[in-house]
Amino acid sequence: MNILIGQSGGPTPVINASLAGMISKALSQKEIQHIYGAIHGIEGFLEDKYIDLASIMTQEALERLKITPGAYLGSCRYQLPSDLSDPIYPKIFEKFAKLNIGIFLYNGGNDSMDTVSKLSTYAKEHHIDVKCIGIPKTVDNDLMMTDHCPGFASNAKFIANQLQNIIVDTQSYHKPTLTIVEIMGRHTGWLAASSALARMPYSFNPFYIYLPEKAFDLEQFLADIQAALKKQTNLVVCISEGIKDKEGKFISEYASAKTEDSFGHKYLAGAGKFLEDYIRSTLGIKVRSIELNLPQRCSSQFLSKTDLEEAFAVGEYGVEKALEGKTGQMVVIQRLQSFPYQTELGLADVHQICNQEKFVLDTMIHPAGNDITQEFIDYCTPLIQGEVSLPYKNGLVDYLYRDHH
Amino acid sequence: MNILIGQSGGPTPVINASLAGMISKALSQKEIQHIYGAIHGIEGFLEDKYIDLASIMTQEALERLKITPGAYLGSCRYQLPSDLSDPIYPKIFEKFAKLNIGIFLYNGGNDSMDTVSKLSTYAKEHHIDVKCIGIPKTVDNDLMMTDHCPGFASNAKFIANQLQNIIVDTQSYHKPTLTIVEIMGRHTGWLAASSALARMPYSFNPFYIYLPEKAFDLEQFLADIQAALKKQTNLVVCISEGIKDKEGKFISEYASAKTEDSFGHKYLAGAGKFLEDYIRSTLGIKVRSIELNLPQRCSSQFLSKTDLEEAFAVGEYGVEKALEGKTGQMVVIQRLQSFPYQTELGLADVHQICNQEKFVLDTMIHPAGNDITQEFIDYCTPLIQGEVSLPYKNGLVDYLYRDHH
Repeated sequence: MNILIGQSGGPTPVINASLAGMISKALSQKEIQHIYGAIHGIEGFLEDKYIDLASIMTQEALERLKITPGAYLGSCRYQLPSDLSDPIYPKIFEKFAKLNIGIFLYNGGNDSMDTVSKLSTYAKEHHIDVKCIGIPKTVDNDLMMTDHCPGFASNAKFIANQLQNIIVDTQSYHKPTLTIVEIMGRHTGWLAASSALARMPYSFNPFYIYLPEKAFDLEQFLADIQAALKKQTNLVVCISEGIKDKEGKFISEYASAKTEDSFGHKYLAGAGKFLEDYIRSTLGIKVRSIELNLPQRCSSQFLSKTDLEEAFAVGEYGVEKALEGKTGQMVVIQRLQSFPYQTELGLADVHQICNQEKFVLDTMIHPAGNDITQEFIDYCTPLIQGEVSLPYKNGLVDYLYRDHH
Repeated sequence: MNILIGQSGGPTPVINASLAGMISKALSQKEIQHIYGAIHGIEGFLEDKYIDLASIMTQEALERLKITPGAYLGSCRYQLPSDLSDPIYPKIFEKFAKLNIGIFLYNGGNDSMDTVSKLSTYAKEHHIDVKCIGIPKTVDNDLMMTDHCPGFASNAKFIANQLQNIIVDTQSYHKPTLTIVEIMGRHTGWLAASSALARMPYSFNPFYIYLPEKAFDLEQFLADIQAALKKQTNLVVCISEGIKDKEGKFISEYASAKTEDSFGHKYLAGAGKFLEDYIRSTLGIKVRSIELNLPQRCSSQFLSKTDLEEAFAVGEYGVEKALEGKTGQMVVIQRLQSFPYQTELGLADVHQICNQEKFVLDTMIHPAGNDITQEFIDYCTPLIQGEVSLPYKNGLVDYLYRDHH
């Protein structure tokens, strides 16, 4: 019997650690002969793009794979049709049969769990013995039924540490300045909230944190900034990219309404950029906006050891449970306690997870809507613990590259 | 006899390593009683803002100071008047006399060297025995007479590694995309050039690198991108923030010409954002621009050990040479050979350094103007060697904070 692994959705700093966990566990199982990796997820697999991983994954390669960002196998954003009588389903399972696939493991977020849900349902309905298991992965931390998602913690650690760096840097000057840091999170504020972990002695920064979960009011923001400048000269505030007003309009849309450049092209800017211009022209102080952007989700230099180990473990666990006959499930992390941090792995019904979003809990958000509470700090702090020593070669991290040619 | 140290201009990841080098050397000298640190450079000193460093700088504090980004003492952007008969000069030297300052060390870039130049000239003309020495510091690497500047290498290492991260991440998908990475450097392209060190097997990325030293042509850029997309699906190109056309107009000014947001505020965007919109609307492909922004110059997580050690050493050397009676000089790094890397420290006339800029050499830039040459690779590679192990506490780097209250 063979196993097929796919990666799907946006990469995380530990997506390949889960892949390494799956490969590592599968390599140790006598009943598994081939470990196939789908290139660019189910989309690439439909075009017969896959590789045999067992032959190339030495112990040394697995160690390098673990700390390599980006989807090693290649990812996709691809949704299977809702109608299970669509001809794509028999096509997929014929390909599975041809390769003698008994286990299909899909590593991804909400959309990817939808694929697991549909394939497992189809298999069950047609009495096909292919176990389908979802392996959670998302920097956004928005998957239901799990305490948190592998990928979130390393991203949170990036944000907390980069915020600390930015705060330290902005304190170098003694002129009133505002620095707005825009953090990933179109619908949920988990990542922006993690900036709170950067609060250190001798500074209130980040002074405010605005999440998409609470309506954003431009006038209130201005009032907040004016109040804060009385206490903190070098002000740093954090926003989620997806903050929106009480009508549900994204603040980033305020900017793009009628802006175009000198060539007549429509302008796409972020919420941070808009607020930068707004405060500069209103208060006349120096304002800078920083979009943490892509590096958030691909910087191995900020890996949380806790996250890395959990990502590897959920991969291993997925293989183990599939071998026990489980299907239509996603691996979840259950927190037993925070201090000292203790968790156990489990399974949850993937059909109840897919296409849903978990928002930052109300009790984790300050009633004023511009900060988080201690409950979030207690939730997030254990997750960013532990550092990972990286293999460097000639000044660059020695990542594992797949031959794309 | 006492010593006064100041930090000036933009911070670097190793600005405090030079400070630690100066303190460390001064602590070991019997003839030095007090080590004063000017708060916010010469500007703060004029307002009698300074602290006594000897008492707080234990060996443990010095080790943490070394890896702390941002200007520990606080920085300033302040230029002394050209007219040496201005009353500010006797005022400064009266303050020096009151504190029994025999040595003034100023850590900064071009503008800060101007301060060293003026104060040393004034002291000489008025037969005042205060030795004034400049300690080089700039991420821009644009100081004359020195092979390179402390701060540049750690920034270059940040850029090379973040580019590698971004390249790995963008390869996760197989749709044609362009990622434009905007890198610090208003006038010189040293930092943008260092992105070339990220070139790895299985990818041509960063495919192009555009520097301010060569005129940027929008039509040529479009042609470049079209040619590259035939060879590389996930294209990554790097630009200096300061790229300009043959008339000397900044590309970033193309964007701000007539853009304003829905509130009527003038829009300030970068060159990367402008080019993102330009290519998206012209070629219709997915385009993203990333401004590496402030984290470039304040991320200890990308410290070059070579840079850190050199920054410490130039600080020590400055104290040593001042004690030998040198003045009106800046410490310089002379490269003896690149492989294996070997340097020695020396002094150069600060009057010939201040207010000038060193551009990327013509022989380091590809004649097509969209890449660098092997000469730059050979120049830069030795500088980013060696990693620094950071002290972490609770998931964050344990920086040394100065009490601002």
